[in-house]
Amino acid sequence: MDSKEYRETAKSVIDELADYHDNISDLRVVSNVEPGYLRELLPDAAPVEGEPFDNIRADIKDKIMPGLTHWRNPRFLAFFTCSNSFPANIAEMYSNAFNGAHFNWICSPAVTELETIVMDWLAKAIALPKCYLSYGPTRGGGVLHGSASEAILTCMVAARDKFTNEMLADMPEGEEKEEELWRIRSKMVALGSAGTHSSTQKAAQVIGVRFDTIPIDVEAGYGLTGEALIAKVDALKARGLYPFYVTATLGTTDVCAIDDFEGIANTLRERANGGKTGEIWVHVDAAYAGSALLLEENQHYTKAFEHFHSFNFNPHKWMLTTFDCSAVWIKNRKWFVDALGINLHVLKNNYSDDGKVIDYRDWQIPLGRRFRSLKLWFVMRSYGISGLQAHIRSGVALAESLETKLRSRPDLFTIFTKAIFGLVTFRLQGETEEQINAATEALYLKVNKDGEFYWTSTKVNGKFAIRVTTSTPSTQEQHMQQLFDLLVRDATPLVTAKTNGTK
Amino acid sequence: MDSKEYRETAKSVIDELADYHDNISDLRVVSNVEPGYLRELLPDAAPVEGEPFDNIRADIKDKIMPGLTHWRNPRFLAFFTCSNSFPANIAEMYSNAFNGAHFNWICSPAVTELETIVMDWLAKAIALPKCYLSYGPTRGGGVLHGSASEAILTCMVAARDKFTNEMLADMPEGEEKEEELWRIRSKMVALGSAGTHSSTQKAAQVIGVRFDTIPIDVEAGYGLTGEALIAKVDALKARGLYPFYVTATLGTTDVCAIDDFEGIANTLRERANGGKTGEIWVHVDAAYAGSALLLEENQHYTKAFEHFHSFNFNPHKWMLTTFDCSAVWIKNRKWFVDALGINLHVLKNNYSDDGKVIDYRDWQIPLGRRFRSLKLWFVMRSYGISGLQAHIRSGVALAESLETKLRSRPDLFTIFTKAIFGLVTFRLQGETEEQINAATEALYLKVNKDGEFYWTSTKVNGKFAIRVTTSTPSTQEQHMQQLFDLLVRDATPLVTAKTNGTK
Repeated sequence: MDSKEYRETAKSVIDELADYHDNISDLRVVSNVEPGYLRELLPDAAPVEGEPFDNIRADIKDKIMPGLTHWRNPRFLAFFTCSNSFPANIAEMYSNAFNGAHFNWICSPAVTELETIVMDWLAKAIALPKCYLSYGPTRGGGVLHGSASEAILTCMVAARDKFTNEMLADMPEGEEKEEELWRIRSKMVALGSAGTHSSTQKAAQVIGVRFDTIPIDVEAGYGLTGEALIAKVDALKARGLYPFYVTATLGTTDVCAIDDFEGIANTLRERANGGKTGEIWVHVDAAYAGSALLLEENQHYTKAFEHFHSFNFNPHKWMLTTFDCSAVWIKNRKWFVDALGINLHVLKNNYSDDGKVIDYRDWQIPLGRRFRSLKLWFVMRSYGISGLQAHIRSGVALAESLETKLRSRPDLFTIFTKAIFGLVTFRLQGETEEQINAATEALYLKVNKDGEFYWTSTKVNGKFAIRVTTSTPSTQEQHMQQLFDLLVRDATPLVTAKTNGTK
Repeated sequence: MDSKEYRETAKSVIDELADYHDNISDLRVVSNVEPGYLRELLPDAAPVEGEPFDNIRADIKDKIMPGLTHWRNPRFLAFFTCSNSFPANIAEMYSNAFNGAHFNWICSPAVTELETIVMDWLAKAIALPKCYLSYGPTRGGGVLHGSASEAILTCMVAARDKFTNEMLADMPEGEEKEEELWRIRSKMVALGSAGTHSSTQKAAQVIGVRFDTIPIDVEAGYGLTGEALIAKVDALKARGLYPFYVTATLGTTDVCAIDDFEGIANTLRERANGGKTGEIWVHVDAAYAGSALLLEENQHYTKAFEHFHSFNFNPHKWMLTTFDCSAVWIKNRKWFVDALGINLHVLKNNYSDDGKVIDYRDWQIPLGRRFRSLKLWFVMRSYGISGLQAHIRSGVALAESLETKLRSRPDLFTIFTKAIFGLVTFRLQGETEEQINAATEALYLKVNKDGEFYWTSTKVNGKFAIRVTTSTPSTQEQHMQQLFDLLVRDATPLVTAKTNGTK
């Protein structure tokens, strides 16, 4: 394809994609193909000779499109939203044209520098404490990763190495120190709460440390408390183990619970024995709900973060920044570089060697990097902070609206956890927990099977609940009304059947 | 930005990007901005109100463009190429429009299924043994990661857990087994050769195992031999350590050396004591040169891979597939799922629960996934295998052409390692190693400073050499001639000065 054909083809694709956007609510939200559908439609090897683009275009329409679940559809209420936007997608066009591996500053200085700048912009927009700014008092800063899983893994590695470095600081180099390192390593424990996303457990699995779970406090709204944390820490220490890291969460996956950040900070501070060793690294995972920190009324949550070590949220979730874009901040960049830094002759250049520039390859697992900051920059400039706030407020309001509707029929529904950050969870009415679980699951399955809406469920402390997330950008009040009418229709026979015991 | 504005804006951007492509050779290949240049040009916070797109477009031109190093410029001879293409970039437009987190099959069945299919296409195109096909005899298969670093880390985790699972298979569950696991873990060693890319060492650092380096054999063309490997393995075992993993390389970063795959396979097979335990996992990293396996004359290299465990190469390097796109294959998918599998209620769905489908989240670190297979599919179909072969042959031929030119002036140049896979390394003439190193480094620096070409250097066994990679898609014979003329001009005074001892 030469540049002339590219101009024509790509412009016609732009029209296709705009049409896709304009007509998305006409499509079935969740794909209903059967496993293996695509293999039957495609040849079993790549073609020897090149094909004209129109063949590919036709296959997108006829073979790929039926296998898509449309996350941009206003009736997509599942998982957490993964939102894109026109400005972000245009930014990606530039990024792909300016293609490179960008592992060093010199690979394209603009790629590194724009990232540092927009991460500072974003840190300010969500009111992170100054220690997370690139020019803050503690030499912190932000970096873009691909996913929260990668962010958490990377922070956990830095935490592990910070812990052992401090524990072993006074030992002379040599075999004895090496053996003591491996002894400590084998006793280290990373922690999460029962509401923490599984990525923390996965990170512990990957980096080779133990993992333990702290019970959540249902009274405290399913969040982690300082007391529960310290009880676990003490119990582990009594067994000769070294708890070194905990993930605290703003907006858990199940129910968008918020951990007690102040309580965690205070408890850990009280326990810190004035020394440098044995400090527990606190990472805050706000993968989804972090976008809600754009709203002033939520910014009090970030105050305690100055006592913590790292923070992440995913602008690719609720902040319109097209997957993948996970923002991570650390209070002291040295912790990343100590754990992940490498020196390779072929990457040598004066700028890196002089320490004048940031080489983000030492802040992450991969060597190469995409020009991801471009889409974040386009989104922040195109919407402005006020435009982004309006978008977030809309998602928040829709969940509250649905909650109000559900509460208007207490004969059918009970709210499991009230609307927060654009998520509400509910259950059906019933006489026993078993009945309620069964009826709620039946409703959950029916709605997904019918395919007008698509949603997910959760099970907390044995209670099955339906999760409705209302932060898909195209979702509006009319869809809440449509959903509620459908729920009343489908819930009535389930609740009636149960309470009559006739099922 | 509504869809009407998107249509107009995105089309005008297409023209900009086509112009960028058409005029790229007029640009200075490597950026010459100073560190910190961009912060002076941008505000220190995001705007409150949204800005019109033309503001952003103007900033791309005036502020971003000067800070770019142009990897598509034909005079980009540095690192390894990171090549994109129009079909891949159009695929990314679709991918970004079909945005989603795609961690499960049901998130968009087409995303999972196309990936399985194109990874089979690609495995066949590069003649991987059948055990790496998704429908092969060992339940293997391919997956797309973002980078070779991630691929190697993921395989190393799988290797670590396979090793300990086998070592502990006969122990009853309980605390004793747990403690034995941590004891073994603390004694495990991952291996690479002196030519192995640093990502292997970084992976070992991250997953918490020891790392050791095997010397390379200069006589054997800087590749790793089976003998050297087994000598290291025996030495480690004698110290009570457990070597469990080695990265073998097709095309090392320094000089594109090829390890002795047959020798490694034979040596390890001879040593395997018939049992299941203690087997060493062999991963082959062909991040750059793997694309050259599209050529039949190179496909003999893959024969030994049936004795190995995993393989990766990056289509985003030499195969026109726009960063990021790293292809990884494993001989038995169970090894990934055992090490990385998670179960999360909110992700539950019938298809995953029934085991009917692949959930690639269990084959990688991140949970969410981009629709990366689309660009690989577009590239293979648009170029066809024959078109891709022609592209690869062109890069191979250019390095050979440059080698011939350099050999025509033995008074100035010596070939350090001969042209292979589009990479040739050379040094200047001189009387002592010290003189040669100094003159070669002076030439290397001068060319980069002048900015007409951009290249990188390496240091192997104390010898400084200049690396010229000739696989940037726009690079042609005329650029080799231009480079050679420039080299003769710039090398002459350096060599003369040295040999006269007058500098």
